[in-house]
Formats: sequence, C-alpha cells, structure tokens
Amino acid sequence: MKKISIKSPATIANLVCGFDILGMALQEPFDTMELELLEEPVINIRHTDDYGLPEKAEENVAGVALKAMMEAYGQPIGFNLTVHKNIKPGSGLGSSAAGSAGAVVAANHLLGNHFSKEDLVRFAMNGEKLASGVKHADNISPAIYGGITLIRSVFPLDIIPLTGPPMCITVVHPQLEVKTSDARQILRKEVLLKDAIKQWGNIAGLVTGLLKEDYELIGRSLEDVLIEPVRSILIPGFDAIKQQSKEAGALGGGIAGSGPSLFMFSKERSTAESIEKIMGDVFEGLGVEYKTYVTGINYEGVRIITND
Amino acid sequence: MKKISIKSPATIANLVCGFDILGMALQEPFDTMELELLEEPVINIRHTDDYGLPEKAEENVAGVALKAMMEAYGQPIGFNLTVHKNIKPGSGLGSSAAGSAGAVVAANHLLGNHFSKEDLVRFAMNGEKLASGVKHADNISPAIYGGITLIRSVFPLDIIPLTGPPMCITVVHPQLEVKTSDARQILRKEVLLKDAIKQWGNIAGLVTGLLKEDYELIGRSLEDVLIEPVRSILIPGFDAIKQQSKEAGALGGGIAGSGPSLFMFSKERSTAESIEKIMGDVFEGLGVEYKTYVTGINYEGVRIITND
Repeated sequence: MKKISIKSPATIANLVCGFDILGMALQEPFDTMELELLEEPVINIRHTDDYGLPEKAEENVAGVALKAMMEAYGQPIGFNLTVHKNIKPGSGLGSSAAGSAGAVVAANHLLGNHFSKEDLVRFAMNGEKLASGVKHADNISPAIYGGITLIRSVFPLDIIPLTGPPMCITVVHPQLEVKTSDARQILRKEVLLKDAIKQWGNIAGLVTGLLKEDYELIGRSLEDVLIEPVRSILIPGFDAIKQQSKEAGALGGGIAGSGPSLFMFSKERSTAESIEKIMGDVFEGLGVEYKTYVTGINYEGVRIITND
Repeated sequence: MKKISIKSPATIANLVCGFDILGMALQEPFDTMELELLEEPVINIRHTDDYGLPEKAEENVAGVALKAMMEAYGQPIGFNLTVHKNIKPGSGLGSSAAGSAGAVVAANHLLGNHFSKEDLVRFAMNGEKLASGVKHADNISPAIYGGITLIRSVFPLDIIPLTGPPMCITVVHPQLEVKTSDARQILRKEVLLKDAIKQWGNIAGLVTGLLKEDYELIGRSLEDVLIEPVRSILIPGFDAIKQQSKEAGALGGGIAGSGPSLFMFSKERSTAESIEKIMGDVFEGLGVEYKTYVTGINYEGVRIITND
C-alpha cells in the first residue's frame, strides 16, 4: 500500500467556555487529501483549491507536520501530497489543523500505524505553530481522535477523549477573515480571578454535562465570561444570532475557535435547521456573505477513504 | 417530633485545582448537635465545646442560617440548639459550614422536610458570609448533599453532585490558625490567562477522572498553579508532606480549603496510613502540634442520629 485518500474534518475549538482545552470534530465541512509514500526524503505538495496556500513543505502546515514525522521515523521516506481544501483558511473551523492532522494520519496509515495517536498530535502541532505561532492542540486532537477531546495539558501533552450525548451543530461562516494570531493578540494577558472562577465553574459543568449526557447542564454551562466578550466584537451579528438561536431552542453556542464562524448546539435537527435560517437572515441583513452547515459530531476523526 | 440529634461532617473545599467550585464531605471529623423545635420565634444556642464561639444567634453561623430559614418559613418557629463542636474553627475543614449546614438540615427534618436541599444551601450560606465575609457554597454543599459537589455558579446557585471512585483521605490539621478571610486576602485579584488555562485544564481533568473513575487521571489533575503556590507559604511542612506523600503512593492532594489542614487522596487504606505517619513525622520535626485522620468520603452529608 503506497497511496491513500482521506477526509479530514473541520473542528470547533474552545466550545465556548473551554478556551485552549476543548475541541470537537464535525462531520462537515472536510478537506480531502491524497498521499503517496515515497522512498526518498522529499515532500511534494500540490493544492487543487483556490486558497493560494503555500506549497513549499516548510511553509505548509501539512508539510511541517510530515517533516516532523519523517524525522521521528528514522528511515528515509517522503511523500507526494495533493490537498483539496474545502475548509476555508481563517474560518475558525480548524482549517490548518485539518491539513496537518489529515496528512499525518494518512502517512501513519501508509506506515502501518507505526505511531500512536498522541505521536500524531505532536507532529501535527508543528502545523499549528506555523499557522498561528502557538503549538495548540485543541483542533488537532479532535481531528485525530474524533469526537470531543479535552487537552488537560499541552506540556506534557495529556489528551482525554470525552463522551457526550448526540447533538446537532449549526455552523455559520461569515466570509470575513479573522486570523488566529490577531484573535489571540486582542486577549488580555491577565484576567480577574473572580472571572476565572466563573469560567472554570462552567468548564467543570460542561464536562459533567457531556459525560452525564445532561443537555440542560450542557446548555447552562455554555457561557464564556472571558474570551467571548472580547472576540465577539470582531464579529458583526454575534449578539443577534446568539439571542435568537437560544430563543429558537439552541442549547447554546458561540464563536468557533477564534472565529469568525459561529456555532450552536441543538438537541433536535429541526431546531438546528431553524437556527440555520436565523444565522442566514442575520448575515443577509448585514450584507455579509456566509455559508452554513447543519451537521453532527464526527466520532471517527480523519477518515480513510481508499487504499491503492 | 420536636427534637433531633445530628452529625455534621467536615468538608474539604477546592480539592486542589477547583478553587471555589469543588468540595467533598468526610466521614471524620464531625460536629454533633441537638436541635429542638419551638413555637416562638427565638434562637437559643449553647456550645458544649471549649472553642469560645459566640452563642448569640446573630453572631453564630448556625444562628444566622436558622434565622434565614425562619424568615422563609412564614410561620412563627424557633429553636433550642446545642452544639458539640469537634471540627476546630480555622482548621480549613469546613468548621463553620458544618455548623450552619447541620443546623438547617436538622431544622428541616423537624419541619417535615419542607425545604429543598438547594434552599438549605442558601440558608446556610449566610453562616459562611458571617464567618468569612463571602457567601461561598463549596463547603456547605457537600455537607448537605454528601459526596463531592460542583458549584457551577453561586449566583444563580447551581449545585451539581458528582460521583467518583472510592478513595481514602488522609488529613492532617497542624494546630496553627489560618483565617479564611486572611487566606483570601493574600490571593492576587488578577491571574495570568495562561495560568488560568492550566487551572481549568486540570479542573476539567479532575471532574472527568472522578466521573470516569480513572485514578491516574485524578492524580495527574490534582495540580494547582494559582492558589497553592501562594497559600502554601503560610503552612510550614507543606512541600515535604506533598513530596513524601506522593512518593508513598498518594494520588495527590494539597491544602484543605484555605488551610492549614492538608489532605492526600489514596487508593488503598494502607497507603493512607503510611501518609498519616509521614504527616506526623514532618510536623513533629517542626515542633508543631497536629491531629490526623484517615477517613473516607461521606456520601450522606449531615446525618440524622435520633428523633425524639
């Protein structure tokens, strides 16, 4: 087996109150990739999409992730990678993580699953470092493990897969670019202890709600007193969408990663579809182009489509 | 039924990383109380212990808790309360919470359980306000609900009982007084966002470890990067006890509430007993008098002993 096709999912980091520690993989949207294993130490990358992303390995998130893997493997290997990116860069939906996670999962499959999932997260984090300047793992981990993951700690890396009840997710991506690095820069370096206490009460509540499959508790806990008040300023329509979605029955939601995409959780698909309409109406009213998805949790993460 | 005897448990607030949101009830030590229901609106309090606590209702934690309950009840009632306090005030083991929680649970029993547990927490929080200046609920809640409780939010009050695996708890109370109000005052009002992220990663990890009954994860998550580094300075022997207890097999532990008592969780009773010896040796070496307990989780909370 020398060649493989995969689907790499969009992911939502933070999940409102879990800044830098929680993430979830989505069924849609996703990137597709073809990866071919070579016997010489080169990385050739080709993008078939129109996003104008760099194809030089050392400037490409998948390239630097594969490079880290090649160094750890010890024997001379290389890759031809073709990327059909569908998750728009700067959407807040883990576009860079999908690139680097997809590449290393595919490569590991071609190597007979030589590396652990945790190893793969470590390799892929090099892509996040390249994209945003920070080796965060909150998009990478759900892309690789599937479902919802908790990053208890980055150094040392401690990833804990979480279970949760079925939920529908409505996502809207307004066509505005917010760079992760900019979205990080506007955050205060210090926070009030009393606000931090509120935040970790909500995080503990959210994790408990997920594990106990308690929708009410999940809903009550989806509150962010630290990050959202700052970042939501960058996203026109945020308050209207949040309020109207909750009125329509959403459990809760907020900014996907560093934005500008927004998401809402619902128990029922019909609610999720009403919210899709709300999101569309708000951005149409603002004259902002947008794209919506009504989707579910992706429990598998990166998915192998075909082997040659 | 006009008279009742109860046992009200010691509690450990914070559980290392869960500052102001987590608490656990212990089997030992505990206060005992006798409460008699009267038909006139008076509160008579008598302490049989030697701690010199105020017996005037408006200056006594149980008194103000009972007063709040009497106001909510609507009909004229009163109480004769006798307290045999065994949990030393200022120990960090929830002495004030045991007083106010015990009184309201006993009174509610005499009133045919007219009030909900959440109501009782609200009444008893008046005692905490009197004792420490803050209406915190992290000792009160486990005393009333039993087991381990999460306070997702104080305003509005949201108490979530958590499950967890069996654990042994070794407690040492060095005979030094640390007032909760002082222990609060030395905390910084602002914290670094990056430290807060570490803290909520650990809180999420601890809650997950408890619910999944994963001892390893509980152990890894019992880390406090914000409060312990400041408060442990007030407690001689802290570092030695923590290090030696972990070497002896403790899952982890730290300061009970605002201290000076320390606690360590163990999976096995034999480990908990080794730790008891370590704690004793350290405080003997320092010439500090101390008292130790090897105990378990109290799943019941305040316990009714007898009805007359």
